[in-house]
Amino acid sequence: MLEQLKEDVFQANLDLPKHGLVKYTWGNASAYDSESGLFVIKPSGVDYSTMKASDMVVVDLDGNVVEGELNPSSDTATHAVLYKHYPEMGGIVHTHSTWATIWAQAGLDVPAMGTTHADTFYGSVPCARFLTQEEIDRGYETETGNVIIETFEKRGLDIFAIPGILLQGHAPFTWGEDVQSAVMNSVVLEEVAKVNLFSRELNRFAEELPQRILDKHYLRKHGENAYYGQKQ
Amino acid sequence: MLEQLKEDVFQANLDLPKHGLVKYTWGNASAYDSESGLFVIKPSGVDYSTMKASDMVVVDLDGNVVEGELNPSSDTATHAVLYKHYPEMGGIVHTHSTWATIWAQAGLDVPAMGTTHADTFYGSVPCARFLTQEEIDRGYETETGNVIIETFEKRGLDIFAIPGILLQGHAPFTWGEDVQSAVMNSVVLEEVAKVNLFSRELNRFAEELPQRILDKHYLRKHGENAYYGQKQ
Amino acid sequence: MLEQLKEDVFQANLDLPKHGLVKYTWGNASAYDSESGLFVIKPSGVDYSTMKASDMVVVDLDGNVVEGELNPSSDTATHAVLYKHYPEMGGIVHTHSTWATIWAQAGLDVPAMGTTHADTFYGSVPCARFLTQEEIDRGYETETGNVIIETFEKRGLDIFAIPGILLQGHAPFTWGEDVQSAVMNSVVLEEVAKVNLFSRELNRFAEELPQRILDKHYLRKHGENAYYGQKQ
Amino acid sequence: MLEQLKEDVFQANLDLPKHGLVKYTWGNASAYDSESGLFVIKPSGVDYSTMKASDMVVVDLDGNVVEGELNPSSDTATHAVLYKHYPEMGGIVHTHSTWATIWAQAGLDVPAMGTTHADTFYGSVPCARFLTQEEIDRGYETETGNVIIETFEKRGLDIFAIPGILLQGHAPFTWGEDVQSAVMNSVVLEEVAKVNLFSRELNRFAEELPQRILDKHYLRKHGENAYYGQKQ
Repeated sequence: MLEQLKEDVFQANLDLPKHGLVKYTWGNASAYDSESGLFVIKPSGVDYSTMKASDMVVVDLDGNVVEGELNPSSDTATHAVLYKHYPEMGGIVHTHSTWATIWAQAGLDVPAMGTTHADTFYGSVPCARFLTQEEIDRGYETETGNVIIETFEKRGLDIFAIPGILLQGHAPFTWGEDVQSAVMNSVVLEEVAKVNLFSRELNRFAEELPQRILDKHYLRKHGENAYYGQKQ
Repeated sequence: MLEQLKEDVFQANLDLPKHGLVKYTWGNASAYDSESGLFVIKPSGVDYSTMKASDMVVVDLDGNVVEGELNPSSDTATHAVLYKHYPEMGGIVHTHSTWATIWAQAGLDVPAMGTTHADTFYGSVPCARFLTQEEIDRGYETETGNVIIETFEKRGLDIFAIPGILLQGHAPFTWGEDVQSAVMNSVVLEEVAKVNLFSRELNRFAEELPQRILDKHYLRKHGENAYYGQKQ
Repeated sequence: MLEQLKEDVFQANLDLPKHGLVKYTWGNASAYDSESGLFVIKPSGVDYSTMKASDMVVVDLDGNVVEGELNPSSDTATHAVLYKHYPEMGGIVHTHSTWATIWAQAGLDVPAMGTTHADTFYGSVPCARFLTQEEIDRGYETETGNVIIETFEKRGLDIFAIPGILLQGHAPFTWGEDVQSAVMNSVVLEEVAKVNLFSRELNRFAEELPQRILDKHYLRKHGENAYYGQKQ
Repeated sequence: MLEQLKEDVFQANLDLPKHGLVKYTWGNASAYDSESGLFVIKPSGVDYSTMKASDMVVVDLDGNVVEGELNPSSDTATHAVLYKHYPEMGGIVHTHSTWATIWAQAGLDVPAMGTTHADTFYGSVPCARFLTQEEIDRGYETETGNVIIETFEKRGLDIFAIPGILLQGHAPFTWGEDVQSAVMNSVVLEEVAKVNLFSRELNRFAEELPQRILDKHYLRKHGENAYYGQKQ
């Protein structure tokens, strides 16, 4: 069942430590199959050195395990809420990567300060608020997904123009058309989090990127007039 | 004698440089066997590239070598004092890992600023005071163990809720149910030491994690209602 | 056609991630053949793990593809403008390397603060201004090349004495007699960008290198009285 | 001639990039044979991937090549001056390692702030002054050696108690009983340079290590009452 997707999700999870985003089993990647309405996610707390593609767990949009021997990631409910609300998401990644987590702990949006950012994120990456006690009691992981949705809706953001978010005091989530692009977006977010922090250390008046450069770089890689890569 | 424990301690010592916590032979890991009342620790100053499991030294709770050809770690007396006072400790690790050492040299507790911290440490990781001249004269390594105990007792901390400490001007010690979890706790402490430092660099008003989030994250991984991983 | 140059450019592009200057396919290296007036550049957005020397694209000085199946780098026009204006350039490298990008985002020249800098760059590495809307509309990549030329000409700089530049809000370009030296200059720029940032963090009154030391170090490696290495 | 020493020096030079202290061929290690009054040093600017033990150059204390096909390191005269003045030095290492170079560019001594420092350096690592124009004209590399000697003599420092120095605006030199210990001292200096910088970033009132702890840690590893390692 969804064997190719299991393989993709397995590889994406292995890519997280390769890119230095994850230590031990901190972090999880999933991919959604819009046809069946099911998604595949890594099992909870399984050592990456022994984990196999067949250990991936198949889950429905209410977070129920449909296939798999192991418990799915403890963050499964967050993934489920996001896929249910945004069925166009093909993959989601959660890590505690160092520099993105630093911005999350600082409680700050990551501003668009350079073209590395603009090539992937069309504006600031938002930092979502802490959950309330009531939300925690109701269901921490489900409400984490809801707070992500709330943040994007309140700010009127497009999930593909800004394919990631920080959760205050916690860490980032990113997503994409598929799980590979969700991983890449985590790599980019980690890099710009580092670069932007030190740009402001070096020059506290370092500016955000002018809108014209942000437009140019984002649009040369995304949308109908994109001319980066080998497509078309 | 205690062959499995020697193998575990040997592997744990090798894991320290793999996780980037140790250069050369700086650092030591040990494990305690509550049945025999003995512990196994690495020999002092032996190159990791030639060290073998059979080089591990067996020591009693007064720090006397029971088996082994080589001198045990120069920090053996600290381990002995801790196992004697806390027989529920199964493993202890000491490193001079970069970011934890930075907090030790700054003489500051590492506050709980994010969920990476809360998943392992249920509150601030304390920084213990410098030893006095009298304590140094009496026995530096023994008194180092005593200052750790003093710090936990004065502050009323549970060693398993906060499985680590900094020694001012020196470096961290961590522990756990076994030597593998003591290593993991060193990895976590190193990571949060780095993340917390830069969170405050980025935003000097960065808050500690609200108690409700600290409770949630710690308790979803620890205690009877834990639901992380494959246990149960 | 230009098979050796294709091999050199291919290897130079692979060297970029090896030196930690590039993640994924961010970055591009090219080399110029003054005899034919053509240059070789990497294709756009091709995964380094599958890229072959034969995938390199041959381009003329107006940026037209002369040989190759794949689209050349999206930054090809910048390379073309530079080779056309400075036919003595043998190779050009563009990366978004972390520390050089930090200075670019801070909008600051990298001052010569030490001999690591002086061994390669005979003075500050300039930071070029943002492009205007008009320039972006006229052709972003072409005008990026023109802004590099403008910066060197306005400041009266010699491209071989200062073989690199930052583009504000973007990232560095470096060059050299051949593509290998262009890569090395990117490595040096990345290192001095890091070292200089933290020198000022440590001591905000950290001085620029005295002119006499800058002269000595630059001239022992460059020019007719150089005595470094095995040449002559 | 001095075949074992050539092998040791070759290996020590290869160890520099392994420990992350050196990029390309920046850096050099040498070893002194007190019996013959000759030392062995790496050749200048030779790629580490093709360098062989037999490429090492034998030099006398006036800096004349006694054996070898290649030019010796451009810093050979500095090594010669040091071995001539301090015949008890068995090995010398020069690198532009990142964090030690940061302190050199900041023009500051590295204070003893922790036990990682105290285990190797019995007090601050001094930063020597810039050379004057006259000294540069007289012979840059020779006078670099003389400034190192001047700094140790003016401050009344023991070269084995403080086995290293920074040169302002330049980078560190370290030494030891043999070339392996000179390498290790470079590794330690690099680590404490990083740790001390961030200790002060985190807490600008971070203290130097109390004298009693400095004494204890240095003397448990050095001198007649040392009890670290397997010796005696």
